[in-house]
Amino acid sequence: MYDLTGQIDRYLETTGTSDGLCHIFLRHTSASLIVCENADPAVMADLEALMSRLVPDGDPIFSHTAEGPDDMPAHVRSVLTHTELSVPICESRLDLGTWQGIYLWEHRAAAHRRKITLTILGG
Amino acid sequence: MYDLTGQIDRYLETTGTSDGLCHIFLRHTSASLIVCENADPAVMADLEALMSRLVPDGDPIFSHTAEGPDDMPAHVRSVLTHTELSVPICESRLDLGTWQGIYLWEHRAAAHRRKITLTILGG
Amino acid sequence: MYDLTGQIDRYLETTGTSDGLCHIFLRHTSASLIVCENADPAVMADLEALMSRLVPDGDPIFSHTAEGPDDMPAHVRSVLTHTELSVPICESRLDLGTWQGIYLWEHRAAAHRRKITLTILGG
Repeated sequence: MYDLTGQIDRYLETTGTSDGLCHIFLRHTSASLIVCENADPAVMADLEALMSRLVPDGDPIFSHTAEGPDDMPAHVRSVLTHTELSVPICESRLDLGTWQGIYLWEHRAAAHRRKITLTILGG
Repeated sequence: MYDLTGQIDRYLETTGTSDGLCHIFLRHTSASLIVCENADPAVMADLEALMSRLVPDGDPIFSHTAEGPDDMPAHVRSVLTHTELSVPICESRLDLGTWQGIYLWEHRAAAHRRKITLTILGG
Repeated sequence: MYDLTGQIDRYLETTGTSDGLCHIFLRHTSASLIVCENADPAVMADLEALMSRLVPDGDPIFSHTAEGPDDMPAHVRSVLTHTELSVPICESRLDLGTWQGIYLWEHRAAAHRRKITLTILGG
């Protein structure tokens, strides 16, 4: 999992948008965007453990296995979580709760380059 | 679960926004926002029962247990459902289907005060 | 599952919105909107298989069974996936990744007529 919060905040500052909505869109179907607790790294490890139990890599229920045992589980995990999120903007920053961060959750075993589209609404 | 539909509608009336989009953002990672069937309270009890089977309180798979057996399950349930929702506005009201309501789903056992940010787009 | 991507793109062309955000809202609680892999039909069959294991039709855990064994599972599947999605618009089309499509996922066994509300933000 990768914390995107600071990166998005730095971009928002360059746009001069003081108030509005920031839409974050992930252009892939084998990773996710989530709002997650931002203080204890164990939360992310526990999320991964639970998800691996619900949708295990290599599960024989899957027939779409062209890219390996983590191919179809990644698509399912993407659908069970989020491909896009909208977050309020206040004073040119994401207006999150104290314990919230925006994370990219990679569901493939190998490293992938991921692209995100930001759309800023407001002024 | 708490039905927020009427409360949001009453706020929308004060803004004079006739058409657009209402974004609802929950500033917490241990409760959820969902669009749910609004007629039979058994639906909510059944949702809770199913979620308790998928992500049980006190599950030994979790290591983040600082705030008790319902701490980490609440974060997982939040990620598997929704922290934010956008709903169309028509004639200054949420333009929901007949059987839809907007609910806050508390995932902690103890009562918590929860804060929501509404962002209204449109005119 | 029904691919809505082309239908939405054709509507976007008629609005003349070159850039912005397209919000897609499903007015029902027993079907879903998802962003899904668009190349291999086996992905959809596998999604259905996995969801049927997590939330089986006829599960005795459910008490809301007025409309049959697929009634309450459909509501749960709706909450675990998505009732609404926002997608960036670029040059009057949904600005999706190469392998992404927008799908309506019917969770009831019988055919249903489903209504969607599109809200276009931008210019």
